[in-house]
Amino acid sequence: MPLLFKKIKDLRNFLKSKKCEGKEIGFVPTMGYLHEGHRALIRLARMQNDIVVVSIFVNPTQFGEGEDYERYPRDLERDLAVCEEEGVDIVFAPDVKEMYPKGYRTKVCVGELGNVLEGAFRPGHFNGVATVVVKLFNIVQPDRAYFGEKDYQQLKIIEEVVEDLNIPVEIVPVPIVREKDGLAYSSRNVYLSPEERESALAIYKSFLLAQKMIKAGERDANRIKEAIRKFIEKHPHVKGIDYVEITDENLKPKETVEKGDRILVAVRVGNARLIDNWKVEV
Amino acid sequence: MPLLFKKIKDLRNFLKSKKCEGKEIGFVPTMGYLHEGHRALIRLARMQNDIVVVSIFVNPTQFGEGEDYERYPRDLERDLAVCEEEGVDIVFAPDVKEMYPKGYRTKVCVGELGNVLEGAFRPGHFNGVATVVVKLFNIVQPDRAYFGEKDYQQLKIIEEVVEDLNIPVEIVPVPIVREKDGLAYSSRNVYLSPEERESALAIYKSFLLAQKMIKAGERDANRIKEAIRKFIEKHPHVKGIDYVEITDENLKPKETVEKGDRILVAVRVGNARLIDNWKVEV
Repeated sequence: MPLLFKKIKDLRNFLKSKKCEGKEIGFVPTMGYLHEGHRALIRLARMQNDIVVVSIFVNPTQFGEGEDYERYPRDLERDLAVCEEEGVDIVFAPDVKEMYPKGYRTKVCVGELGNVLEGAFRPGHFNGVATVVVKLFNIVQPDRAYFGEKDYQQLKIIEEVVEDLNIPVEIVPVPIVREKDGLAYSSRNVYLSPEERESALAIYKSFLLAQKMIKAGERDANRIKEAIRKFIEKHPHVKGIDYVEITDENLKPKETVEKGDRILVAVRVGNARLIDNWKVEV
Repeated sequence: MPLLFKKIKDLRNFLKSKKCEGKEIGFVPTMGYLHEGHRALIRLARMQNDIVVVSIFVNPTQFGEGEDYERYPRDLERDLAVCEEEGVDIVFAPDVKEMYPKGYRTKVCVGELGNVLEGAFRPGHFNGVATVVVKLFNIVQPDRAYFGEKDYQQLKIIEEVVEDLNIPVEIVPVPIVREKDGLAYSSRNVYLSPEERESALAIYKSFLLAQKMIKAGERDANRIKEAIRKFIEKHPHVKGIDYVEITDENLKPKETVEKGDRILVAVRVGNARLIDNWKVEV
């Protein structure tokens, strides 16, 4: 069983002695309800470090009003079992008061990247993410931290924050893990009924469609985005598309598509808001 | 002579080996043009740590438009001599490009404390301060960092930032150092002509006046503030008073003055804008 810490002080004291022994620490920050995507992060961390720390904290400051903070799925017992299976050494699961004892005063405010795509639909979201991640980095002081490409914009923003604030940690990106039918693993998939889940597959299928267009020689981003939109929209239970964008690897919008570009989408299906992305091959 | 580093990477590599030897690092962040106030910080750091690091960096992001960034006094050679006299091990003097290679994207945004007093007159100032201090903390990773009470609001904000972001550093406050006649040491005192300097003494004298009123039983903050204002205003070369405030030790305004409260003032004298503060005794 991994060691479970709920207090910052206890975790710090424990890690301090390990650091002094020269152990390298790999850190996987999560909001819990762990799935195969998280397992991929943990497995890489396990391979690259002496000690693996997983945090489980549903961070209120990255949820906007009317978002799903309250109903976000939580199951610490199950998460601990997953962590045990994956050989995690330490689980850090603080409560909100431990992380924000006096509310939310000092923030990490991210640059322009925080206002586009997800940021345009979730104002303040990435400031909340960046703040809690910086806090967690300061608490754990890991050598490496693992972030999934599923939240591609989050990954790029965290990379920027780490660079801009000179945080001494290596950010390791991990590719998206998909179910057999192509749906990207997400804790929010539990919101989907079987019928809605079927419609949600349209996202992955639209990536395959786009990829096929690109393979066939299409390079016009607008035409590809339009095809993706049309394809997704025609599925039942799709309530709306927040965005379909094609950018370079640094989230700069593209007009002409190249290898390594990213297709990013956010789609509302049933009661779930799903995000996904795809790395363009040519 | 202290070791001089201009590059983050070189400093980090050097400090890493020292950290591994278990050495404790004391850090004094400055904007250079070192005076007796800085020497007091350095001396305490020297007493409490194995290695003393002084940074010298005139941080552009904490200056507003029309402020004195360009003319702020700089003299690295003299500063290095001062550091040598005080037994400093390492001076870190990066240029602006080293600290902000891509401009100013990610910021540390401080809470309400950043909008009052100095913050009301220097919008964004404390975000700039907090950002550079967090960067420097991440670069140096000190065990202790030393801040003068001369910039009392800055000290309280840095304490808050460190607490809110869980930064693993101990903030050590150091009392104000004054010249024989009572003027608080400040790099900006060089802006004063001899006549203006004479007028600037009104600040210290007004504290003595206030202290005398308090000793005599006066407890009404408004009456004390009014007396301070009137006293300072009557001096020649005083261009204006930005604020006179009496707060508790956490910068909360007070109506009834008690032991440990702070009187804080900002006064424009000649071409200089001077800040100073006083801890109330009863």
